[in-house]
Parts: sequence; structure tokens; C-alpha cells
Amino acid sequence: MTERWAYLGPEGTFTEQAAELLSRRAPGPVERRPAPTVPAALRAVRDGSVGAAVVALESSVEGSVPVTQDELIHGEPLLITAEAHVPVTFDLLVRPGTELSAVTAVGAHPHGLAQVRSWLEGQLPGARAVVCESNAAAAAAVAAGDLDAAAAAPVAAVTYGLVAAAADIGERHDAVTRFVLLRRPGPVPAPTGNDITSMVLSVDNHPGSLLAVLTEFASRGINLTRLESRPTRSRMGEYVFTVDADGHLTDPAMADVLVALRRRSALWRFLGSYARQDGRGEPLPGFATGSAYREARDAVRRWQLGDFS
Amino acid sequence: MTERWAYLGPEGTFTEQAAELLSRRAPGPVERRPAPTVPAALRAVRDGSVGAAVVALESSVEGSVPVTQDELIHGEPLLITAEAHVPVTFDLLVRPGTELSAVTAVGAHPHGLAQVRSWLEGQLPGARAVVCESNAAAAAAVAAGDLDAAAAAPVAAVTYGLVAAAADIGERHDAVTRFVLLRRPGPVPAPTGNDITSMVLSVDNHPGSLLAVLTEFASRGINLTRLESRPTRSRMGEYVFTVDADGHLTDPAMADVLVALRRRSALWRFLGSYARQDGRGEPLPGFATGSAYREARDAVRRWQLGDFS
Amino acid sequence: MTERWAYLGPEGTFTEQAAELLSRRAPGPVERRPAPTVPAALRAVRDGSVGAAVVALESSVEGSVPVTQDELIHGEPLLITAEAHVPVTFDLLVRPGTELSAVTAVGAHPHGLAQVRSWLEGQLPGARAVVCESNAAAAAAVAAGDLDAAAAAPVAAVTYGLVAAAADIGERHDAVTRFVLLRRPGPVPAPTGNDITSMVLSVDNHPGSLLAVLTEFASRGINLTRLESRPTRSRMGEYVFTVDADGHLTDPAMADVLVALRRRSALWRFLGSYARQDGRGEPLPGFATGSAYREARDAVRRWQLGDFS
Amino acid sequence: MTERWAYLGPEGTFTEQAAELLSRRAPGPVERRPAPTVPAALRAVRDGSVGAAVVALESSVEGSVPVTQDELIHGEPLLITAEAHVPVTFDLLVRPGTELSAVTAVGAHPHGLAQVRSWLEGQLPGARAVVCESNAAAAAAVAAGDLDAAAAAPVAAVTYGLVAAAADIGERHDAVTRFVLLRRPGPVPAPTGNDITSMVLSVDNHPGSLLAVLTEFASRGINLTRLESRPTRSRMGEYVFTVDADGHLTDPAMADVLVALRRRSALWRFLGSYARQDGRGEPLPGFATGSAYREARDAVRRWQLGDFS
Repeated sequence: MTERWAYLGPEGTFTEQAAELLSRRAPGPVERRPAPTVPAALRAVRDGSVGAAVVALESSVEGSVPVTQDELIHGEPLLITAEAHVPVTFDLLVRPGTELSAVTAVGAHPHGLAQVRSWLEGQLPGARAVVCESNAAAAAAVAAGDLDAAAAAPVAAVTYGLVAAAADIGERHDAVTRFVLLRRPGPVPAPTGNDITSMVLSVDNHPGSLLAVLTEFASRGINLTRLESRPTRSRMGEYVFTVDADGHLTDPAMADVLVALRRRSALWRFLGSYARQDGRGEPLPGFATGSAYREARDAVRRWQLGDFS
Repeated sequence: MTERWAYLGPEGTFTEQAAELLSRRAPGPVERRPAPTVPAALRAVRDGSVGAAVVALESSVEGSVPVTQDELIHGEPLLITAEAHVPVTFDLLVRPGTELSAVTAVGAHPHGLAQVRSWLEGQLPGARAVVCESNAAAAAAVAAGDLDAAAAAPVAAVTYGLVAAAADIGERHDAVTRFVLLRRPGPVPAPTGNDITSMVLSVDNHPGSLLAVLTEFASRGINLTRLESRPTRSRMGEYVFTVDADGHLTDPAMADVLVALRRRSALWRFLGSYARQDGRGEPLPGFATGSAYREARDAVRRWQLGDFS
Repeated sequence: MTERWAYLGPEGTFTEQAAELLSRRAPGPVERRPAPTVPAALRAVRDGSVGAAVVALESSVEGSVPVTQDELIHGEPLLITAEAHVPVTFDLLVRPGTELSAVTAVGAHPHGLAQVRSWLEGQLPGARAVVCESNAAAAAAVAAGDLDAAAAAPVAAVTYGLVAAAADIGERHDAVTRFVLLRRPGPVPAPTGNDITSMVLSVDNHPGSLLAVLTEFASRGINLTRLESRPTRSRMGEYVFTVDADGHLTDPAMADVLVALRRRSALWRFLGSYARQDGRGEPLPGFATGSAYREARDAVRRWQLGDFS
Repeated sequence: MTERWAYLGPEGTFTEQAAELLSRRAPGPVERRPAPTVPAALRAVRDGSVGAAVVALESSVEGSVPVTQDELIHGEPLLITAEAHVPVTFDLLVRPGTELSAVTAVGAHPHGLAQVRSWLEGQLPGARAVVCESNAAAAAAVAAGDLDAAAAAPVAAVTYGLVAAAADIGERHDAVTRFVLLRRPGPVPAPTGNDITSMVLSVDNHPGSLLAVLTEFASRGINLTRLESRPTRSRMGEYVFTVDADGHLTDPAMADVLVALRRRSALWRFLGSYARQDGRGEPLPGFATGSAYREARDAVRRWQLGDFS
């Protein structure tokens, strides 16, 4: 049975590439539907009109994508069930026949413009930067003749019938964007042995609070791979932290950290456990493995029953 | 002698309000010049064409302003020498005579659009959101007849000859933006007894590194009021942290923390000490005051000389 | 049915006082039997010839009693099931008719001699200090005519037919000795709401190991009331630590600490949970109470089953 | 010019061996004088009748020597200026001609008796243990014909004209006692590159206090090699800690720790810096070396002067 997924459109974006990549790992066939905005894509998941949505979470260059972060933090809860890493390269797309020297205006999303600013200043010093809703929207505007050129994903050339007047014009040639597949809360994917657990921490504005929370991870040998702050939106100086940690909800050490964070009212939200796609996580130290937990818990339980044999 | 300051223009923005506020605390007269972008404003400081620049650093709703953060982190070094907090309210600005019901498109910077999205969905469900370079640019477009309405600062109505079709339409009614005055590196402002020290920390990707760095602050009784992560731009999962702490570069406890961070290669950059404008910082605990430092250092120095009297 | 208890004799010691005190809290009648040494008293417990033994654990003046500590650390395991605090006062006991001025030698255990040294130097500067096996043994020697005087517990006067030539001659007038009731491992006493849990920690010789172990207590809000080091006897510079902590084996927070210590191979030995006799322990912080543990564990268990309702 | 040193006599003890060893490292000739007790030896230093005293500080088997610890903690201040490690072996010393089978009573200091208890139970099950002031005093009693045998240092045989009826009868064959040379406070010995700094810490009875103090060492990369608790003598449950750490008072990292401890009122007493005699201490991590301190302090001092070049 075909499942429908929403993704941030239009067609021809890095997000569509990610959706395509993620759908190959889906158990059944997937029908992809572009959504006009990230909130619209997530609304479709929440109201059940699609089974899942693919959205960008963070970029190795620009940092986290605020709208996605804010939806995950403040919106109706969703779970991350998979991730995909897509290399981000920018081509300067023009209509066939347009000379590079004829380009007077280049459109892109502000993130895209930030990426190609240096190239434009060097190669097209006179060209004007035009802010667009997305890089693909810029490509569409080029196709429609409203704009000379777009800085966009190579895939957009195919979608919009454009050609590359210059290739790989971004500042960073190893830039990567991380996309996630979001679903309504339910069973988390089974552990693979190389998983990430994501969560949002809420740390009160008291000296040492963040230290205490990070200590809960460190004392259980759990490695953090991402820690990003976001304002709580209620008061300047109050933050929540989006955290990625090595391990899975069913690992005793991870479950133990989650219990400790929840006891401290520091766990704003659990965001899911899912297979890591970029390399391997840190192995747990000996004192934090599942068997160390089991052996120690059995021993203390026996002591509680008066059995010290 | 008049000093020239750059600020992110155009006229009629919250930034201009902040520049006006900051110039009242300046020692002499100030001439304000709008700059087209944050990088342009900062370039003017760096090349000496202006003495200082006023730019937004963070918003209580949207979090930090990426371009300012990235300039402070990665650009040629500048120092924060003052801050100002400006309440952020949005009016729906139209040309005199325009009816609210006639509005079909509303322009603003993406941050502004995010703020008024709920109001628009409720009051003008059919209106299209138009991404502009700034809220003031949207107001200018309204004045030029290119756009029906702009979500912008009340001050923009004066600048562009518009009127408010609706007032305070933002989601947050207590939203505040924090602006900073940036100068070329030089003498830091004298301590006032209620100061902030800002810096950028670089924490390597090793479990416990952030914990060790935060411990350097906590063990010297120094309170952190802001901790924001930014990607290093070199590798996914590597971050620097922009930190605000209570205290001044000339406080022994703060100087001691800076020495410790520098020894650990964790101090990416010192960003300045300057008077706090929103309430009071945490007082230092007894073991971290200037006199505690002086007494203890004198004692240990005497011991090193063999004097245990 | 009468239970037999061993105590460090002879009769007329502080230990007998403690045994009398503890037996009043016993569920049934107790028959007290003096043992010649602490190891002998404990051997009687281990081989089943008595049900329990009463021995001194520590003094507020002299610190821990090494032989008891070493038996608890290195001997066949025993559990502390109760404690008693006995004020320690010394009288100078002589045979009836002996003048103070006629005293030329005063006997006591080295601990007792240390306590009365100042008094002797001031009041009997010519008197010789004689090391005895115990203060009571010194009293017995006085009774037998082998010694002029003994520094001993007031109770010893009754036992040995002596009189006090001077009262309360110890250096510390508020000195207290803490005695414990030891049994073979078995069910621990039920929690009373004001309990101590004792244990021995083994901390390897690695910088930060003790810090990591103490962090396990602190992060679970558990207060330590005693931390004493003892050499491991295998290598200079290696220690075990005898620890008393507020709480009971059946408290989730305490059980959680014990599990963590055992996982770290830092729990050399659990020594028992029993009612505190000197004041009240620290209450657990909100994040470490039984209900905080139950609520958080239930939540995480539900998540593991895919239930996020 | 000859300097006089006191040591805990009588002659023929391990202490005399240590004194002999230490005097070989003295700059000039040394005349050794036995003192009857540790306090007497230290009184002679304090009143200037000798230049230094040699006393036992701790044993690898029995732990610290309480009287020495208490003098260092509570007595008029003295500094440790050197240490010596002496292997501790026990021989069973008898008068020439005495058969092992004829021995009915064996004398020694309680520490010595503890060491040979197992051997006596196995080889001389009928022999009585006799508590003496010191092992050498027991040997003297054997020489005087008041006792059959003494468990004492091999050197005592020479001093008292005895012979060994059995050699190396102690429980631990690798036992070592650590002796220290104590002087009145004055210039500390110059650093050798492999030094120990000793001190007494006073940690208030507040959860987390010891943790905070240990963190001061750990965050400066200073390795602790000894941490022993002693009661404060004022209240049960209050302790001071005798600490040995790798490094010298003139190392910036060590001086920095001492300043931090003194600021926290956690430094009860500095006890000296002196050359380590058993192996090498841990090298400082890169962030704690003298050059790391100098470079970082210079930088922060320049910033305070407005120099960011």
C-alpha cells in the first residue's frame, strides 16, 4: 500500500532529493507531495492527510533551520523516524542561451544567497541579489522569464528546463544539509546498533543548571553530537536546547538519562530514536552497556530482598 | 567632534531606533548613516569610514541574528561596546485611504512575517505574504505603490508617509530585540558594576569538553546569561558557542575565567565588556570577589617567598 | 527466645553501654557476652555462635576505629543493622582510699591516654602513662593492685569496685563514640524515613575517579554524611572510602546510586541501611523522590512501547 | 656546621633508618637525637632546640599515623621538606640462645602486632601478644629479660644485641612506611621537576562541597595521589582531608589551585612542596603548563590595557 509523504516543495529542491533518498529505505511504495511551507508539510502529518513529512533540520553551514526547530519544539509533537544527509551544491541556472555576462539579477533563498555571495562579488560584481521564497522558486522565476538567474540545486535545472551557466558556485564545497522524516508519535524504529536519539532540553535560568543536565549524559557515558540553543520565546535569555545523542531509547543507558532528565523537569520533549546516516556513534563505555545495567540492577534488587549470596 | 555611525537601514527600522537610543549615551554628537546590509555596516567600521555600527544581535522571539553572529565569530574582529533593548511591535502599514479589506498582499522580512502570520491568517486569510529585504523595505514598497501593506515598526509610518490599518499585530506583545554597538578592537568601556562580558567559545568534539568549559565558569562563580550555538561551518556537528556572562574584563574572576579558557584553547574570541541594560546581573559569590582574589593571591605569593607569617 | 550478642569486653566499657542501649531496641531479650577483641566478636557472628556483635565504629575525636573498619572492608561480609551514639567521658578511677597525689602511673588504651594527656600533664605531671589493651583492662589492673589509676568510663567504677579520684578528665567534654550492631548478611531493617546507608567505595588511582563517583551521589541528590579513607593494603596511594549516606536501600534514588556505583566497579561493598540515631538526614530534593522516579520511569517505559499519549 | 634532628626513638627503629636515609640528602652533617614521642620530637622543632624532625606519616598497610596527622593538622604549623620510603619487615627477635619453641610472649607496638598476628597464630599459637610503646621498646624489654621475644625491625637486633628466631614474619612482604622531614615554616625546597605538594583541606558539611574542591584540582589538571580524611575533633561528621598532589608551590597551576582553595576557605593549611621519592608524578596536561599560564595571562593583561593586536 502506497504511503503519502509531504516535503517542502516546489519540485527540484534538495528536499525532494532527500525525500527520494528516504523513500528508498521505506518498507513500501511512497508518493511524494510538495507542500508550500514547512508548517504546511507538518500540518499535513498532524492532521493525517499524509503519513510523514521530509524537512530540512540543519545545514553544516547555516546551522539549524529555525522553522523546523520551532515546529519540533513548540508545535504539536512529532517524532523523527529517519534522517538523510544531502550534499548541497549550487549552480547558477539560466535559461538556455543566456550568457553569463548578461546576468544582472540572481535570485535565491537568503540561505542560498549567503552561500554564493563571494562568488557573485567576484564573478558578477554588478549583479543584484534578489530574495526569493526558495532556491527552486528562484529557478521557477527564471523559467518564467521574471529573473535572469537562480542559485539553486543542480536538480532544479531538470525540473525547470534551465542550464548551468556556472557550476558549484557555493562558498563551501563540502556543505551538507540534514533532512529528517517526521511522523505522528508512535512506535520508534527498532535499534540498529548505530542510532541517534534526539530530544529538546529545557534548562532553567539558574547558574549550573545546564552543567547539571550535561552531567546526566556524561555520567552515563552518553556522547552528545549536537547541542543547539533556541530561545523559549517567552523571555530573552531563556533557552531550550535541541540535543542529539548517540544511542537508542531502548538502550538502558539512554533510557536512564531520559528518566533522569524527566525527573529534573529538564526534558522538554523526546524527539525520536533512528538510524544514524553519517558514520558511527561513540560506543558506550563498559560501565554503561546493557549488560552492565542488567547485572548491577539484578544485584541491587537481590539486596533489597535480603539476598547477599 | 561628531562621530559617524553606520546602522542597518533603511530609515524607519527598529535598528534606527536603537541607534538613536545608543547615541544618547555617546560622549559626543553622532551622525547616523544607514547601510544596506549588516556586512556593509560592519565593513564601514573595519575600514574606518565610520567609528561604530549598530546592528541587531538577537531577538527574544527569533533567537540570534545569524548574519551578525557569523560576522562576530568569523569576520575581522570587532568589540561590542554597548547594548540597547528595543521593544518590537508591528503595525500593518498602508497608504492613507487603503481599506483593510482591500489588502491582498503583505510584505515584511521573513522574521516579521513569522511574527504576524497568526494575525494574518485570522484577519486577512486571503492575503499573500511577500518576502522583502527588511520590514522598512516593505514599507517603502507600499509607499511606492508596489505593495498593499507592510508589517513594520510604527516608526516606519512616519518615515514613509503611511498609516496603521491595524496596530500591534505581532504574535508576541512583549518581544524585544537586542542591538549592539560595535567598534574596532581597543580599550573596553570602564566597568560600571553591572556589566556583561561576551565571548565566543570553541569546544572540540570530545565528550565532556563543553562540560569542562562550563565548569570553568561555574567554579569561579560566574553566571552565564546566554549560550548560543553556531556551526563552525567546517564540519556538521562542530559548534562554537556565543556566550554572555555577568561581569567585566577587569574583574579578577572574569579575567581568571578568560585565562583558563585561553589555556584550554576554548576561547575562540573575546567580544567585549559593556554595561548591561536589562536588569542586574548576578552578584559574585564571596569566594570570587576582587578582594577574595587579592587576599588569596597575596598569601600564595608570600608562601612562594618563604613567608608564612 | 533470647538472642546472644557479642561485644568488645571486658565488662564496664563504653561498648557494653552501647550494647545495653541497642538491646533495648531489639525485638526480643538479649544476652550480652564480652569478647576479648573486635575480631573475636565478629568471628562469633560469622560462625553463628552469636546472632550479632556490638563494636565501636568511630569516635568524634579519634576518627574511625581501624580494626572495625578493616574488618568491615576486608573481612567476611557483615551488615550494619543498627547504630548507637554514646557520650564518652573519662574518670580517673582509683582504689577506694587512694589519694590523687599518690598516683604515679595511669593506665588506659592509647585512645583513652590521648584524651586525658592534657589533664595528666596539668594535674599529675609526674605520673607515667601505661598503655593497656582497653580502659576497662586498666581499671581491672587497678582493682588487682597492679596499677595506681585508670582513665576509664564511669561505668567501670561499678564493675571493678573503684572510685573516681577526678571526674570528666578528657580533653573533649562533648566526645561521642558511635557503635554499630553487626549481623550476617540478610534482610535489611525496614526503612524508617530517617535512615543511613553505609558502603565501601573502591576508587581506582586515576585522576577524576573520585570526582566521578561523588558525582553519582550529587546528581541523585543524595547527601553524604561521612567519607573516610582507608588504605587498600595492597599499594601505597590506593584507598577505599567508607561512606555514610542519607537514605535507605529501598529508596529509588539510593538504589539508583548503588546500581551506578556497581556498574562503575566502584562499589567495594554494601554495608547496610539502618535507622539514624543522631538528628535527621537531609530530605531528598524533588527530582530524587520516590514519586519522581516512578513517574519518570513509567513515562519512559511507555515511550519504549510506542505510547506517547 | 652540624644540624640537630629529632626522630621518634628509641634507637633501632624504622624511623632511625629513615632519619639516616634523609640525612644523606642533607646539605651538611646531621646529628640525630631520639625523642620519646612524636609530639616531643615536633615540640623540639617548634621551640628551636632541633632544626628538623623525622616522623612516620603513613604506612601502606595501616594507613596514616594519627598522631603525626593530628600534629600537622592541629598543632603549631610545620612544613614537610623531604620524604623517605622505608620497607617495613619484621623479624622475631630473641636473646641469643632462646629457642623458638620456648617463646610464650611476643611484644610489639599494636601496629606491629597487627602485622604479625597471622604468623603468630600459625607458628606460635600458644604465645601471648604484649602491647608495647614501640617495637623497639619491645626489643629493649627482650634484651632486659622482661619479655621472650619482640616483633621488630631487623636493625633493632643490632641495637639491642638480639638475634632473629624468624625473619620477615609480617603479613605484608611489600609493606612500606613513608617518613617526612618537618621544619619550621620558611623557604620551601626548590622544585626538582618531580615534586609533591601536601596540604590540609577543610570542607564544610554541605552536599557538593568536597565535589567543588576536587573540581578545583581536576580543572587545573592536577593529579591527587593521596586523600585521607581526619575528624575535625569538633563535631562527628566533620572532616579535614590531608591531600598530596603532584607539583610544586612555584608551578603556576599549583599556585592557582592554592589560590582557588584559599578563596573558598577550603585550604586549612599548606604543608609543603618537596621532592617525590617513589616514582614519577603525572605530567601536567598542556593546558596547565607554566607556559600555557604565562601566554594566557599575558594575553588577558594586554586586553585589559586595550591591546588586541
